[in-house]
Amino acid sequence: MAKKTAKRSPKPAKSAGKKLKKMCYYFGHGRCDGDGTMKATLGGKGANLAAMTKIGLPVPPGFTITTEVCTSYYANAKKLPAGLLDEVQKNIGYLEVELGKKFGDPLNPLLVAVRSGSRDSMPGMMDTILNLGLNDVTVEALKKATGNGRFAWDCYRRFVQMYGDVVMGIQKRHENEHEPFDEVMDKLKGEVNAKLDTDLNEADLQELVRRFKTLILDRTGKVFPPEPIEQLKGAVGAVFGSWMNERAILYRQKYKIPDEWGTAVNVQSMVFGNMGDDCATGVAFTRDPATGENVFWGEYLVNAQGEDVVAGVRTPNKVQEMIKDPIIGPAYKELEKVRKTLEKNFGDVQDIEFTIERKKLYMLQTRNGKRTAFAYVRIAHDMVKEKLMTPEHAIRSCDPETLNQLLQPIFDRSAYEAAKKEGRCLTTGLPAGPGAASGTVVFTAAKAEELVRAGHKVLLARVETSPEDLRGMIAAEGILTSRGGVSSHAALVARQMGKVCVAGAGEVHIDYHTGTLTCKGVTIREGDAMSINGSTGEVFQGAIASADSELKQVLIGRTMKPSDSKLFQYYDFIMKLSDKFRTLGLRTNADTPEQVHNAVAFGAQGIGLCRTEHMFFEGDRIDAMRQMILAENVDARRAALDKLLPYQQGDFEGIFRALDGRPACIRLLDPPLHEFLPHTKEQQMDLARKIGVPVEKIIARVHELHEFNPMLGFRGCRLGLIYTEITEMQARAVFQAAAAVLKAGVKVKPEVMIPLVGFKKELDLQVEIVHRVAKEVMAKTGKKFPYQVGTMIEVPRGALTADEIAQTAEFFSFGTNDLTQTTLGMSRDDSGSFLPKYRDLEILKDNPFASIDQAGVGQLMKMAVEKGRSSRPDIKLGICGEHGGDPSSIDFCHRVGLAYVSCSPFRVPVARMAAAQAAIKHAPKKAKK
Amino acid sequence: MAKKTAKRSPKPAKSAGKKLKKMCYYFGHGRCDGDGTMKATLGGKGANLAAMTKIGLPVPPGFTITTEVCTSYYANAKKLPAGLLDEVQKNIGYLEVELGKKFGDPLNPLLVAVRSGSRDSMPGMMDTILNLGLNDVTVEALKKATGNGRFAWDCYRRFVQMYGDVVMGIQKRHENEHEPFDEVMDKLKGEVNAKLDTDLNEADLQELVRRFKTLILDRTGKVFPPEPIEQLKGAVGAVFGSWMNERAILYRQKYKIPDEWGTAVNVQSMVFGNMGDDCATGVAFTRDPATGENVFWGEYLVNAQGEDVVAGVRTPNKVQEMIKDPIIGPAYKELEKVRKTLEKNFGDVQDIEFTIERKKLYMLQTRNGKRTAFAYVRIAHDMVKEKLMTPEHAIRSCDPETLNQLLQPIFDRSAYEAAKKEGRCLTTGLPAGPGAASGTVVFTAAKAEELVRAGHKVLLARVETSPEDLRGMIAAEGILTSRGGVSSHAALVARQMGKVCVAGAGEVHIDYHTGTLTCKGVTIREGDAMSINGSTGEVFQGAIASADSELKQVLIGRTMKPSDSKLFQYYDFIMKLSDKFRTLGLRTNADTPEQVHNAVAFGAQGIGLCRTEHMFFEGDRIDAMRQMILAENVDARRAALDKLLPYQQGDFEGIFRALDGRPACIRLLDPPLHEFLPHTKEQQMDLARKIGVPVEKIIARVHELHEFNPMLGFRGCRLGLIYTEITEMQARAVFQAAAAVLKAGVKVKPEVMIPLVGFKKELDLQVEIVHRVAKEVMAKTGKKFPYQVGTMIEVPRGALTADEIAQTAEFFSFGTNDLTQTTLGMSRDDSGSFLPKYRDLEILKDNPFASIDQAGVGQLMKMAVEKGRSSRPDIKLGICGEHGGDPSSIDFCHRVGLAYVSCSPFRVPVARMAAAQAAIKHAPKKAKK
Repeated sequence: MAKKTAKRSPKPAKSAGKKLKKMCYYFGHGRCDGDGTMKATLGGKGANLAAMTKIGLPVPPGFTITTEVCTSYYANAKKLPAGLLDEVQKNIGYLEVELGKKFGDPLNPLLVAVRSGSRDSMPGMMDTILNLGLNDVTVEALKKATGNGRFAWDCYRRFVQMYGDVVMGIQKRHENEHEPFDEVMDKLKGEVNAKLDTDLNEADLQELVRRFKTLILDRTGKVFPPEPIEQLKGAVGAVFGSWMNERAILYRQKYKIPDEWGTAVNVQSMVFGNMGDDCATGVAFTRDPATGENVFWGEYLVNAQGEDVVAGVRTPNKVQEMIKDPIIGPAYKELEKVRKTLEKNFGDVQDIEFTIERKKLYMLQTRNGKRTAFAYVRIAHDMVKEKLMTPEHAIRSCDPETLNQLLQPIFDRSAYEAAKKEGRCLTTGLPAGPGAASGTVVFTAAKAEELVRAGHKVLLARVETSPEDLRGMIAAEGILTSRGGVSSHAALVARQMGKVCVAGAGEVHIDYHTGTLTCKGVTIREGDAMSINGSTGEVFQGAIASADSELKQVLIGRTMKPSDSKLFQYYDFIMKLSDKFRTLGLRTNADTPEQVHNAVAFGAQGIGLCRTEHMFFEGDRIDAMRQMILAENVDARRAALDKLLPYQQGDFEGIFRALDGRPACIRLLDPPLHEFLPHTKEQQMDLARKIGVPVEKIIARVHELHEFNPMLGFRGCRLGLIYTEITEMQARAVFQAAAAVLKAGVKVKPEVMIPLVGFKKELDLQVEIVHRVAKEVMAKTGKKFPYQVGTMIEVPRGALTADEIAQTAEFFSFGTNDLTQTTLGMSRDDSGSFLPKYRDLEILKDNPFASIDQAGVGQLMKMAVEKGRSSRPDIKLGICGEHGGDPSSIDFCHRVGLAYVSCSPFRVPVARMAAAQAAIKHAPKKAKK
Repeated sequence: MAKKTAKRSPKPAKSAGKKLKKMCYYFGHGRCDGDGTMKATLGGKGANLAAMTKIGLPVPPGFTITTEVCTSYYANAKKLPAGLLDEVQKNIGYLEVELGKKFGDPLNPLLVAVRSGSRDSMPGMMDTILNLGLNDVTVEALKKATGNGRFAWDCYRRFVQMYGDVVMGIQKRHENEHEPFDEVMDKLKGEVNAKLDTDLNEADLQELVRRFKTLILDRTGKVFPPEPIEQLKGAVGAVFGSWMNERAILYRQKYKIPDEWGTAVNVQSMVFGNMGDDCATGVAFTRDPATGENVFWGEYLVNAQGEDVVAGVRTPNKVQEMIKDPIIGPAYKELEKVRKTLEKNFGDVQDIEFTIERKKLYMLQTRNGKRTAFAYVRIAHDMVKEKLMTPEHAIRSCDPETLNQLLQPIFDRSAYEAAKKEGRCLTTGLPAGPGAASGTVVFTAAKAEELVRAGHKVLLARVETSPEDLRGMIAAEGILTSRGGVSSHAALVARQMGKVCVAGAGEVHIDYHTGTLTCKGVTIREGDAMSINGSTGEVFQGAIASADSELKQVLIGRTMKPSDSKLFQYYDFIMKLSDKFRTLGLRTNADTPEQVHNAVAFGAQGIGLCRTEHMFFEGDRIDAMRQMILAENVDARRAALDKLLPYQQGDFEGIFRALDGRPACIRLLDPPLHEFLPHTKEQQMDLARKIGVPVEKIIARVHELHEFNPMLGFRGCRLGLIYTEITEMQARAVFQAAAAVLKAGVKVKPEVMIPLVGFKKELDLQVEIVHRVAKEVMAKTGKKFPYQVGTMIEVPRGALTADEIAQTAEFFSFGTNDLTQTTLGMSRDDSGSFLPKYRDLEILKDNPFASIDQAGVGQLMKMAVEKGRSSRPDIKLGICGEHGGDPSSIDFCHRVGLAYVSCSPFRVPVARMAAAQAAIKHAPKKAKK
């Protein structure tokens, strides 16, 4: 494993050589040097403290040492810059004057808290040293001021312990050792027969401080510094040091935070919430972060320190009830005012920490509050309407992924908790399709359909799924697979259909032969009830009650009127707001009228990918398809295709009607033909009987079509080039459907997409057929319809020669699933054996099948965009891979200048929001005055 | 199908708009405007006619209309440029003066031949119109001059027919029609009761000319032009027209000849070899094109026309015997002189056409002669030594592929012919490994070894081969597969080992179960004799005698002394000559000391790719390898690897010794692990017994390792990153071998190559292990050896991020096999279903797995070269894909600036020559004076 202390320095920042001008920013009533915009210099916490001070809120005064000092510290072999100490002392001086206290003063000592504070809050760094300034002398002054000797010495004890640990580096030396300070304390507790820390009295604590100091001296050869200014110097160094500790470095690597940012240090005068019953401390949100309701939401404890609220030692009170408190009630009124002021000033819900010291309110921290998606839409709606929040902020502050919460069917809360308590959770797989589902477990698609027809709800459990399982998947409430990742067939289809899905539950063993599923000794038979939670990956034995989300009831089920749903109104408001910013178009990957209806309900503006092959599996079609594949010559193939034509035309008519004039990008047949043939002997015999072909011929054809690497095999336009009659039939189906729908007064915009093109000539030959058929259909029907022909860019060669291909292609759609597989030489279906380890080893930051690998695949996309435009300036550019629904990929698509992204219907809200965010993020900056 | 006449024009050349200066170049004794360097302007034939004229050879005078006229013709809507006719008439004037004849003169008419002549000779274009200038008047003059009326009218008849066909466009109008002129002639023959054309007498021919003219008038409404200058105008137009006919266009597309080149037209005065016994015509080579011997080689016929020699109507005489002819003997002496003059002037063996008219010799054509590889090496050797040929030309004029002829074992000629006559040729597959082999047919590798041990020669026949068959392939004389292409495993291994191989013989059905091979009803049992010709793909029933080539006997078998082999001396001379020009280094792909010996004998300067996995199949190793794969934890894996280490170290020692100080680029384990496990139940049971593991576990592991697309799966560095102990063992084997060999006084230069890198971090992590092990081995052995660590660039992402990867990699080797598969999204093993059709459709010019796809894969390579050098200017760059042995790919590698190419041992001579050619072709042009 990696070493405990990382030996590295951040790269010298630009400021490394230059002399630092201003190293400390004071915040107090007399003066306030910084403001809320200075997060880069003061860190998030420091900037917000300055901001609160500036608007007159009661912040305990203090000062912030800038992030630049941190950078300079690392650029100069971990030496604090010259002049820093002078500046610190000057600022301590300001504090002493403002507060009338003095560092080390035996009567009225100044005590401070030292906190780190980077631009974004960052786990792994030193957090807080409280009560800095305490020593053997000042502790007595604290005792006098609070009238509580035990309290004063306990503060001192904690300070020495924390300082010894964090600043002087006293930590355990090997795994099996106890924490050194704990060991000393435990020993003393034994001596005085104390069970709890709180059993130690003032004298015990005095002894403990003595022993702690001895420990420090023994271990370091250094005396615990009694001088407050020395203490402060040490604490500042420790904060800077923690910037480069291993955990912090790893965190920054993960979230791509540059080392050069550095951290600030906040030195703030202490206030105490634990000096008596006229003191209190609390944390609160300015609105309810779960529901978004405009109520003050939080907790407080009388006579307590901040950590007591979080630790749950005593049960805290609701913050709204503070007003009833006879002593600190008046402070609540001020807090209410602060709440309003903060929302107005920060333009968002605030998550605050406060302390009341002797009836006086002090604000210790504020930051934007985290919230659920339900709270997000309501707050954004309300605060924009109240003009408290800018529309830009409303959009920018959304985590698009969380919008899925609004769509998930959910377990009944109590039933769910009960199931967990009863130990019915068998295992946890990958959360592949969010939501919750319960039903009778079945192991075949046929059985799923059969039971559903008989009125049951079913869960389809498969080792893995294939297009042949599609109808079963449609029928099932949810899908469980024991193999495959979040991008497996099961997961992909589940997301597209908004189905609940747990994929790759490796501990689950499915035996089709015996019709059983076993997991950790528990055996479940076909017909037993199970439940899955696609948001967490949990797999349950037995049923758990669930229900559709409200938003789905309005948009999809139409079982609730929009006017009856507040949630819908919030959602709709914010989605329409996002559309005002968005410049990327938004399409969907859909193959059926129903999917189109859903996607349009969510805001899709057309189809980005209609996979025609999905249409070949339904009912009798698959038999005609199989006849086509088994045909021995063009005539026999044409005869089979003639049977498919009316089906396909009908499908397209339905889709065109559902689109109502919106464009539809239709991909011609793509998968290898063997996917359409039955692979078990039994199914082969069945087929032989059905279509009157010797079974040997079927077996031979299956064998002939077998490929070592089907991903790279006889598929895509290669099929259409060898069997041109397939392309012809599909083009005819598209155009005849267009003409028919047009005749019925509905506008159509078909876009015919040729898949897997790597060579211009491939496209030329296919496009020739499409144009010919279009002409024929127009002549025959007398209807003129607009249409385009283009291609998917999904192999690197397509991107590399995009300039040539764009001479023929009227549009490109990036098929980033396959483009990722080929560019990385990595099979999506097989990468499970090494991808998890790759992420542990930090070879990859994200799953490249979920989020575009911008340095590799993205580089090719950029190249293709530039080359494509160089030959055809008005070429239409989109993306239809799974990445089209991923926010960071959408941001990338915005930057490279695509016209639209396309994703599965249930991802549309996420994509819509992400597209708006990208537009705001990359909007040309307005010139400063 | 495509239309008969192509409707397109070549792009306007630069000269389109500008006025042409000189449109005709005269060649005659009084003046000669052109010379041999002007192929671009005069075409190949015209330039050589001018060259011969210039050096005083007896060329019938004439003139050449330039290619620029052709270009201008197309740039101006197929109009001949203004002033052309004037120039033509002026040149006809020169001819008339020089020859004392006149166009259309009733007594002494000038007759000319009109021939097309582009830069390179090009099939599909109009070839020749003879006797232009004949009409009803001049035909009588010809009759008088020859004293042969039938001859004169036959010339006239042929002229009208050809002119009607080619110039006036009289051709059959549908498939079932007869050629119109033939029909007229047949009718007449019926009327006069003539069986053969020669049965027609002078009067019949006069009638025929009349009827031909009537046909022309009926069909075109135009009169056959009696005016010679009108005839000439038409003929010139027809030559230009034929430049854009369909066949010519297709030919140019195939060979990338630009449309803009255009064709020239040669107008040359007629001479007759058929005016009597003092006339003759012949074709000859200045040296023997089969053996290269310095003898005059060719044939002639007395009293004949050029076409008679080729048509084989009469048996021609050897040209050397002409001297014995009492009448034309003296002309032979002149011909001998011409032979010497031509070789001296053209610096190469010439392929000539000549005519003797009334004892006078005329030269009609000369061009460089095509020859076999045997002739090539001898001629190049001799002519360079004789200072007749420049070394550059000796190299440039070689077709490197033909050098393989020198290495092929060959069937005994008569035995081979007999086998064909006897109908023993069963089918024809792909010629995958050149040469000929005979032996007992077997269907398993084990049987092959068994029979070879018992002293038999065997042919291994498999549906397809895998690494498990390797030992059987080594044992066999030749390999026959019924599936797979020229890049299949069988073909690849065959080429690497120089084995004879016929691959993908689809009509052959192999039934392992019954131990039979059937083809077109013939059944062959294991143990029967068969023969295959890997140069033609033929598969024979029964044995055919064969023998090693002479060159192999000298270089590989060492059964013949170099000094005893003239062929070797020629070969060696030309190879050493090529090395003087070559700037690319030359390495080999070899895994055994024997392969290294062979490659070094052919001139390899090191190993470019040593596939370590091939070493895991021999003997007991495979069991240890399988134990490693089946291990359940690191310790068990390490234990199995410890068994493999000494084997692998021993292999490397052997290879290092054979290399004797040359560098060895060693690739760490690359293929997916399932390739090493047995896949039949029987083998699995065997293994279970052997290594004491339950068979269920083996089956489970095989199942677990199964992949949908193994090419893109868990392989390459992905293995070494998950199982770092494999990398460690392999690095240790390499370095311990290096230390051991160094101790024995042999220098070593190992280069450790990490496969399938797409991310810098992958390489970083593996390189760290390699460096650590190297350090450990150096410390343990006390030996310091130089080594490098680098990577294969074989997925597009590796190329796209080559700048990052080169920060760690000391070298790149382009793995163009996989890079082609991923860039094109095309599986080499599966592309057989569409690639042949792709080439018919001209989507691809070449097989991208044989010759680098320069626009796609090459673009990535270029990018990687530039990016790699940008981070590490001295990075070593090579190629080790199969393309390393392909001449056009080698030319590409030279251009992008690689340091070396690597290919299989038996390709080394080809690559050596191709590298020299690339250096000459792209040498910086010397400045003109």
